[in-house]
Amino acid sequence: MNLKMIRYILGAVMVIIGVFMLASCLVALYYREQVGLIYLGVAAGSVLLGLLFKWKKPENTTIYLKEGCVATALSWVLMSAIGALPFFISREIPKITDAVFETVSGFTTTGASILTDVEALSKTSLFWRSSTHWLGGMGVLVFLLAVLPMTGGSNINLMKAESPGPSVGKLVPKVRRTARILYYIYFALTALETIFLLIGGNTFFEAICTSMATAGTGGFGIYNDSIASFSVFSKWVIAIFMILFGVNFNFYYLLLMRQFRKAIRFEEVQAYLAIVLISSALVILNVRSIYENVGENVTDSVFQVASIMTTTGFSTTDFNLWPTTSKIILYLLMFIGACAGSTGGGIKVSRFQILVKTIIKELGSFIHPRNIKKIQSDGKAVEHETVRSVNVFFITFILIYSASIFLISLEGYDFETVMSSVAATINNIGPGFSRVGPASNFYKFSVLSKLVFIFDMLAGRLELFPLLIVVHPTLFKNTVESKILRR
Amino acid sequence: MNLKMIRYILGAVMVIIGVFMLASCLVALYYREQVGLIYLGVAAGSVLLGLLFKWKKPENTTIYLKEGCVATALSWVLMSAIGALPFFISREIPKITDAVFETVSGFTTTGASILTDVEALSKTSLFWRSSTHWLGGMGVLVFLLAVLPMTGGSNINLMKAESPGPSVGKLVPKVRRTARILYYIYFALTALETIFLLIGGNTFFEAICTSMATAGTGGFGIYNDSIASFSVFSKWVIAIFMILFGVNFNFYYLLLMRQFRKAIRFEEVQAYLAIVLISSALVILNVRSIYENVGENVTDSVFQVASIMTTTGFSTTDFNLWPTTSKIILYLLMFIGACAGSTGGGIKVSRFQILVKTIIKELGSFIHPRNIKKIQSDGKAVEHETVRSVNVFFITFILIYSASIFLISLEGYDFETVMSSVAATINNIGPGFSRVGPASNFYKFSVLSKLVFIFDMLAGRLELFPLLIVVHPTLFKNTVESKILRR
Repeated sequence: MNLKMIRYILGAVMVIIGVFMLASCLVALYYREQVGLIYLGVAAGSVLLGLLFKWKKPENTTIYLKEGCVATALSWVLMSAIGALPFFISREIPKITDAVFETVSGFTTTGASILTDVEALSKTSLFWRSSTHWLGGMGVLVFLLAVLPMTGGSNINLMKAESPGPSVGKLVPKVRRTARILYYIYFALTALETIFLLIGGNTFFEAICTSMATAGTGGFGIYNDSIASFSVFSKWVIAIFMILFGVNFNFYYLLLMRQFRKAIRFEEVQAYLAIVLISSALVILNVRSIYENVGENVTDSVFQVASIMTTTGFSTTDFNLWPTTSKIILYLLMFIGACAGSTGGGIKVSRFQILVKTIIKELGSFIHPRNIKKIQSDGKAVEHETVRSVNVFFITFILIYSASIFLISLEGYDFETVMSSVAATINNIGPGFSRVGPASNFYKFSVLSKLVFIFDMLAGRLELFPLLIVVHPTLFKNTVESKILRR
Repeated sequence: MNLKMIRYILGAVMVIIGVFMLASCLVALYYREQVGLIYLGVAAGSVLLGLLFKWKKPENTTIYLKEGCVATALSWVLMSAIGALPFFISREIPKITDAVFETVSGFTTTGASILTDVEALSKTSLFWRSSTHWLGGMGVLVFLLAVLPMTGGSNINLMKAESPGPSVGKLVPKVRRTARILYYIYFALTALETIFLLIGGNTFFEAICTSMATAGTGGFGIYNDSIASFSVFSKWVIAIFMILFGVNFNFYYLLLMRQFRKAIRFEEVQAYLAIVLISSALVILNVRSIYENVGENVTDSVFQVASIMTTTGFSTTDFNLWPTTSKIILYLLMFIGACAGSTGGGIKVSRFQILVKTIIKELGSFIHPRNIKKIQSDGKAVEHETVRSVNVFFITFILIYSASIFLISLEGYDFETVMSSVAATINNIGPGFSRVGPASNFYKFSVLSKLVFIFDMLAGRLELFPLLIVVHPTLFKNTVESKILRR
């Protein structure tokens, strides 16, 4: 295990988090909020400690997949701890578990809150809360790869560990350039949404916070009623941008490269948009009886479908009061999630495509046992290795979900609360149904339950394995073969 | 596709169903119920039509896995149709969908009922209802293999298609002898339970009906309150026999062969008993506050855990009123199910063992990429083929479950009813929670929902693929390779 390199990466992460926090200090300066001093202190501490950690660059910068996973898991735990400090020190969130919950919810772009009155927070904290979504959405390690000069080809393993999707591909041969392109697209789309929201009549603060939360498909609102009080225009802007941020970023890269034909034939994006469309239509039909106005009916339905499927979690209405069919559709969309290579969570559309193709292939093998055609995706054969890892991912996901609902059931809340609260956290959505519906929050849960949710949010965002690997018994066992590999 | 052989098998199945129905005619004779004439007519018709179908034995008796699957799927549809006729003709169940639902529920050993007043049925129909559990439990095709002289080694494919579990093994080299041994054990255990229930003070009719329903892990009761009015002794007899019928029958074969050491080390049976024990303990603790009496607390808890995990579905109390933790435990047990190679349903303990081992192996491969040790089970390596098919089975199961909850949600019942009704049918349990709890039934659902449940019950019992294969587009496409295989 290349522990020196892990130390170095953790140091860099601390510096990045600290620098990012400085943006909140500027907000404090603008709104003349004293709490800014706390943010400044934590930011300075984080940067200094980070510099100390990364002082001596290791000679051996090679990171294998296991180091990538461990570094990622530890980075996310570390940034959650640092990010929670200002909430806790300022007493804006007086309990430490709650402060960590809120921060993990932010970085993992879940958007589940323990705050009963969001509007009571300082502007500075509201801004910090939303900015965690933005950084967590594309990933802090991807950011690190974009800015830090790291040599060697092995740092793709950092990206592999942090980025969502069954097979993380580089857009261009160089990891660093790939990471930069991703952040350029990300930044441009965020800026575009901010402009549109300003046109829609929102204040600059509203526009930037909401855009950051949309970009990361996070879902922290800055008002108690989330997006309900926004103008219809702004609601549609947010709905459309949620859908855009749920698209595989490779699609945008293809557009930038003017490969329009290839972009249009992107199977995952096709399926993703088809699911959004069909689900919206079904929900519109299903909830039409509770709306007097067709416009509102369509706006709320499309908004909620987009919000849940992209795993953002904003709400324009209390969808917990919707009929069961719509709730089951939303529940299933939670697990499907957005595209791989987007900022969204869930299991991802492309994984489901591979799963369905696997089943059809399996059935075919009953009929024609000698037929061993590979599964196709975007006109190319999908490697057995990818298929296998998608299968195992899905199984692991369902088993962790099952174990979590058992642990959460110990609280004694109703069946629907238990089932949906875990779905809403492990898929990085935010709100669920019943007692964790959009009109409610996660405040009431015990510390044990909150720890389970924190684990689930991290497991969901990091796609399980980087987090699970840390507890694997053989992690530090240097077998002969891994020594050979290390040479 | 060897259609002649499929015709022949369907004929044999009709004969068997008809002969089995004669037992109900004897019950009618004893209780002097006129409805017996209807049963006699249907039985005679079934036998005659069956003899006609199997008149000419095909020259080519080879059945590949696909013929095995198709024959199994069609057999089960056919026997459900025939089995439903007496209910429908006698007007004891006046709607045809309901009659088919009840029969499918019987043969698949689900035990979900559309009857609001079970006790209003004639004794003859009650007996027929319970006997469908017995025949469906071990399987009609396994029975056919046991009694019909069939040449060629390929008839193992019939057994493979009908018997539950990830890898169907023959106990002895000959399929016919294997099938006979299974039925001997099955019959002996059923007889033993009948004797114990007679000792427990039950009437002969109660004892035989309840034993048949326990043996098949079915769960049709002959009283409206299921088992609640039975003596404590009888409750424990049933609980213990439910657990016994959920054990892998290979275990009993090992005992018969006096291979005690091998039997004790049977991993699946160990895990199965451990889960029963731990779940029972958790439920006892969780529900203790609603019981005044410790004895009742323990009896009901153990009974309900055994009933749900073995997918029988009997009840001694309305567990829908239990706290959420116990309900979530029962919900999860529904999916785990009993052992492979038993009469129980669900996904099966051994599949979960393979799934968990697969995950651990996957994590290991992150750490030691060159390590390609196979998964072990009972001291032997599990073939990649088996692991892959278990993975695909689990994925297919969850996706069918998801599609079904969407279809059932169209009814507009609550979240818990939707989630548990599908779980209770696809896992062949019987009762679920909320509006399909033990104090309720499936009467109120629409025809569409009942058709979904019928599909799910059959899919669960036949372990998905035999049923799905029938709708595969390439089933009747004779590719070159399958022609070569046929020679």
